Amino acid sequence: MLPSSVDIREVGPRDGFQSEPETIATADKVALIGMLARTGVRRIEITSFVRPDVLPQLADAREVVTAIDVPAGVARSVLVPNMRGLESALALRDRFEQIGVFLSASETHNRRNVNRTVDESLRELAAVMRRARDDDLRVEAIVSTSFGCPYEGRVPRARVLSIARRLADHGAHEITFGDTTGMANPVAVREHFAEAAGALPAGVQLTAHFHNTRGQGLANVLAALQAGCTSYESSFGELGGCPVPPGATGNIATEDLVSMLHEMGIATGIDLHALIDAAAAAQAVLGRPLGSHTLVAGPVDWKSGR
Amino acid sequence: MLPSSVDIREVGPRDGFQSEPETIATADKVALIGMLARTGVRRIEITSFVRPDVLPQLADAREVVTAIDVPAGVARSVLVPNMRGLESALALRDRFEQIGVFLSASETHNRRNVNRTVDESLRELAAVMRRARDDDLRVEAIVSTSFGCPYEGRVPRARVLSIARRLADHGAHEITFGDTTGMANPVAVREHFAEAAGALPAGVQLTAHFHNTRGQGLANVLAALQAGCTSYESSFGELGGCPVPPGATGNIATEDLVSMLHEMGIATGIDLHALIDAAAAAQAVLGRPLGSHTLVAGPVDWKSGR
Repeated sequence: MLPSSVDIREVGPRDGFQSEPETIATADKVALIGMLARTGVRRIEITSFVRPDVLPQLADAREVVTAIDVPAGVARSVLVPNMRGLESALALRDRFEQIGVFLSASETHNRRNVNRTVDESLRELAAVMRRARDDDLRVEAIVSTSFGCPYEGRVPRARVLSIARRLADHGAHEITFGDTTGMANPVAVREHFAEAAGALPAGVQLTAHFHNTRGQGLANVLAALQAGCTSYESSFGELGGCPVPPGATGNIATEDLVSMLHEMGIATGIDLHALIDAAAAAQAVLGRPLGSHTLVAGPVDWKSGR
Repeated sequence: MLPSSVDIREVGPRDGFQSEPETIATADKVALIGMLARTGVRRIEITSFVRPDVLPQLADAREVVTAIDVPAGVARSVLVPNMRGLESALALRDRFEQIGVFLSASETHNRRNVNRTVDESLRELAAVMRRARDDDLRVEAIVSTSFGCPYEGRVPRARVLSIARRLADHGAHEITFGDTTGMANPVAVREHFAEAAGALPAGVQLTAHFHNTRGQGLANVLAALQAGCTSYESSFGELGGCPVPPGATGNIATEDLVSMLHEMGIATGIDLHALIDAAAAAQAVLGRPLGSHTLVAGPVDWKSGR
């Protein structure tokens, strides 16, 4: 059975903006986040508190978090890589409601991404999550390479779920399984979410973060829906998701996701036309065609057809 | 339950080549079809016998059908719009094994496409199919706008299946349901194929032809697989399918389809690497980036990852 509604987190302002070769102007970021916040989406990942030399595209995290105008009821989330990132963010504690932390399920990817073993990351994130919970923040923990690793290949599901379990035990309210380089397929996704639901404590929200690397992003969403997953991350305009090699796509486009869900009769709370307007504005800022399909084709119009 | 194998018809040489603004040279068409025919695919739609003034891109249908080198066991199919097209094709009877005929489920689309009512088309196609069967050709009948019409909006499923039934009664061995402008969604697809299986005579092959207009093409394939559909049409490089407006995509890419199916453990008989080589060759001929994702990202490599 399919769920009647799902909850989407828009991650374009973090995951998308950080992937652009040219840093986007702070004013443009603020304007685009303002548009997104008025689409009806209930969660937006705003930025990441990382060292500016590591990620210059997000060096304006403080300015963005301070300047954005987001209506009440839209949860603002910031990504923090470590305790130092959390402390930077906490200086602006009243400007967001959620944090995201992350590690990889595969040792090699975690080492290359954050220069730590998985156990080291888990210990550090436990402290970060404790501190965030003490500050009444909701905590999302992201497990990258949950469906395969670009260095190690297959990542055993038992390993992924064991890491997720430890994150939940350490206080994560939400576990996001990331298909970091688009290696998931519908069979694996369905099995994963069916098993994850039984392996994690009740009350922990399970979220799917798929990439459209090989065009299967929405097929994977369908498989996750069928396994009962009701929480998804996606990026307006299909921005971001480390599109390597050039031309490859990363995140699934929020417009394409919302179009499919609405056509299936699954509610998102999002106004698809307003969302397409936001993606079109991002396209204008970036000055290049984006990968989103529905941005080009428009929503299905059952009155006139098309 | 998912099928263990599916049968794909590669339609790029007809559906793709006819959509290119610049007519592709005959020698290039012949070379690309030769590559496709050696990927392991078992059915290829080679061209269409239409009036050259209507479709100048396929004015070389006779030359292409005569010149191509296709191994035994690969079924060659040609599209014919009417009896005149069939008669042109029959002059080269030993050069193909299947024909395709088509009409639209919606009156307005059929009128605009072939300037006939649906009843007029059905009568004419009945004669065409009879003649083709007399010549021992296998007959595919394509029902366009099966999941929605760009002029009329919703097309009742009962109407689509009634037309399909009449085509089967008139001798079609195979009925293809076309999502001409990408209006299908997984719920509609699953219901459609579940109902179609019961509404049509046993032994008639049911085929799905999806477009990726709003990024849902492979999600629709997944839904069709779950409803028992084992026959699909797609286009290498994501060529064709009347991509209007500019930038919109048409057919699902055969590479993306094959990548997903193989990752799911569903056999196609196709060598994905050879298929990607064919799509890359098409991209070189056309001189522009194509819409296929797997052409850019490559197959999932579980040994090294990626």
